[in-house]
Amino acid sequence: MPDGISAARYAERQSQARAAVAGAGATALLVGVGPELEWLTGYAAHGGERLNLLVVPARGDIAYLSPRLEAPAARVAPGLAEGRVRIETWEETDDPYLLVPALLSPSPLHLLVSDGLRAQFVLGLQAVLPGLGWGLASSVLGPMRRTKDAEEIALLRAAAHAADRAIEQIIEGPLVGRTEADVARSVREALLDAGHDTAEFSIVASGPNSASPHHEPGARVIAAGEPLLLDIGGRRAGYNSDITRTVWIEAEDGSGPDDAFRSIYELTAAGQAAAREAVRPGVSFEALDAAARDVISAGGHGQSFIHRLGHGIGLEVHEEPYLVAGNDATAVAGDTFSCEPGIYLEGRYGVRIEDAMVCTAEGGESLNEAPRGLRVVRGR
Amino acid sequence: MPDGISAARYAERQSQARAAVAGAGATALLVGVGPELEWLTGYAAHGGERLNLLVVPARGDIAYLSPRLEAPAARVAPGLAEGRVRIETWEETDDPYLLVPALLSPSPLHLLVSDGLRAQFVLGLQAVLPGLGWGLASSVLGPMRRTKDAEEIALLRAAAHAADRAIEQIIEGPLVGRTEADVARSVREALLDAGHDTAEFSIVASGPNSASPHHEPGARVIAAGEPLLLDIGGRRAGYNSDITRTVWIEAEDGSGPDDAFRSIYELTAAGQAAAREAVRPGVSFEALDAAARDVISAGGHGQSFIHRLGHGIGLEVHEEPYLVAGNDATAVAGDTFSCEPGIYLEGRYGVRIEDAMVCTAEGGESLNEAPRGLRVVRGR
Repeated sequence: MPDGISAARYAERQSQARAAVAGAGATALLVGVGPELEWLTGYAAHGGERLNLLVVPARGDIAYLSPRLEAPAARVAPGLAEGRVRIETWEETDDPYLLVPALLSPSPLHLLVSDGLRAQFVLGLQAVLPGLGWGLASSVLGPMRRTKDAEEIALLRAAAHAADRAIEQIIEGPLVGRTEADVARSVREALLDAGHDTAEFSIVASGPNSASPHHEPGARVIAAGEPLLLDIGGRRAGYNSDITRTVWIEAEDGSGPDDAFRSIYELTAAGQAAAREAVRPGVSFEALDAAARDVISAGGHGQSFIHRLGHGIGLEVHEEPYLVAGNDATAVAGDTFSCEPGIYLEGRYGVRIEDAMVCTAEGGESLNEAPRGLRVVRGR
Repeated sequence: MPDGISAARYAERQSQARAAVAGAGATALLVGVGPELEWLTGYAAHGGERLNLLVVPARGDIAYLSPRLEAPAARVAPGLAEGRVRIETWEETDDPYLLVPALLSPSPLHLLVSDGLRAQFVLGLQAVLPGLGWGLASSVLGPMRRTKDAEEIALLRAAAHAADRAIEQIIEGPLVGRTEADVARSVREALLDAGHDTAEFSIVASGPNSASPHHEPGARVIAAGEPLLLDIGGRRAGYNSDITRTVWIEAEDGSGPDDAFRSIYELTAAGQAAAREAVRPGVSFEALDAAARDVISAGGHGQSFIHRLGHGIGLEVHEEPYLVAGNDATAVAGDTFSCEPGIYLEGRYGVRIEDAMVCTAEGGESLNEAPRGLRVVRGR
């Protein structure tokens, strides 16, 4: 299995980014800790309240501003090593903002900051560089990061398969009588056991909690005779997995779900299948959302599908492209995204089915392989 | 043990914050997902790319802007429930920025955003509210959050004791022959076993890696006859633990550390003790840093103590006050912060000793109780 991105790719990405900055008429990219930095350099920096900043100018040298105590880690990052990028360090008693203008030449006019940069840093930079135009790095990096190369797709597939294994392990139980929080901890362990480097999230939503799409697992005890929604993911070699399965835990008497649950499950599955089958180069992301939504609306539950169909997936678990009404951008081979319709009946229960997909020249391919049909599990 | 902050405190904090906003001459606080939101409402929101925003105006009603799919979670947060705060939801196809100006009355002039707000949201807000002054929420919330009440100190103490237990469990081994990454995983499990809700960080730095203060645990195999630095922490009921201990793993022949290591260990411990003993109401945070630094400098290793002495600790693992030269703010009873000098000999090894402390009327009290003396462990 692939272990990561080859070092040569970081140099290519940096060249691509410089050209895109110039093409956008911007002076430089200012990239803080986060996925943009990882994409450009492979450096998963520590983050926090100390300013880290990769400066990618349209012209001139790329530089990296690091707190001195983190410089040893910066120097060994694949895209910062080998002297390609000048590393400037600042001491605990320095004002790091004052070091930024000198890294920008000629005089900056329009700067693009990474989308997740903390407000503290944004306002700090705006204070030392007044009167400029400010935009987001995603305006140039978004399209470049959106479409994955073969190395990245292999890494996403490996992460997806690890998540498949984790889902299977959890579904085997035991589940009944345990709190959601306890099962969520087992999910995290299963994600690591299956080969993730980190367990990133673990939504375990039982019974009526399954109707809250972003439910936080808590003290509720999972019971027999109710659904359990698992939305889980982790990172492996930098790339994310994200899978959702909703199962029904059989009742004490061995009976399965009521007809209403079967009905919303089948409708969600049909909507998801319609969207998966609609994936091909040239289809718009809003058309994929509509493919699932039309099926669910025709079944009478459109108003209960309260979120977009999906999101891009890569170094971030949510990134471009967003599969949502209003996004008329069109898919190209190499785009990767989740396909995750849901039906939520507040106070009762909900269903969501999610796969990570890749658009290929031949159509959509799911990176996940866990079965999608309604499963009734023992839970013991 | 305490389970969390009482609901009544959130109402008090919101009132305090409104008064502070007015006192600062600002129009409103705009608080995104993060510690400021948790402090004001107890809501640990999902975060990510969707705008969540608590609007705390100097005058008028407090409002919370939530993506619709997360509204069920928002409605049950202790500081948002009971109708005290109006919750406005936005749909996946809405532009949430356009909803913000209506939540601000009268016309805003100066807005304070939470320090960790993503640049994407900062620039989005600046675009719909042009020509205003922008500042950071910490300018009003920082002093309020810095000094903890008895409930908060009890929660920090419970988290610190959990971290003490995790450290002891890891130090017992086995360590030798395992990778840092593998031990880091055990640390995370030990943090959860000891009662944390989440394991937040786990620096496991062996041999020469202990000279990199923010080392990322990796594939290096831990050996006998070298130091191991553990800097670990998690969250319990919202509040963080953060402890560092450096141990020596005895060599195959049973021998302990070389004299140079003993020397830097004792010097670090002496510096840490000097700073702990200097804690009292009225002492400046830079004086605490100097208390440790003077000892370490007098021992000839001042240039190898390459970071500040410490940071505040609470809902964030790093928050105000920062114990660093230049910070002449003075401690008051209830301030909580780390005390963590270190000596780092690049390429060779390093030592750091860290406790979370509280300033009381009588002086400094360590919230951690794990032994601080040099420990030589078997590691098997």
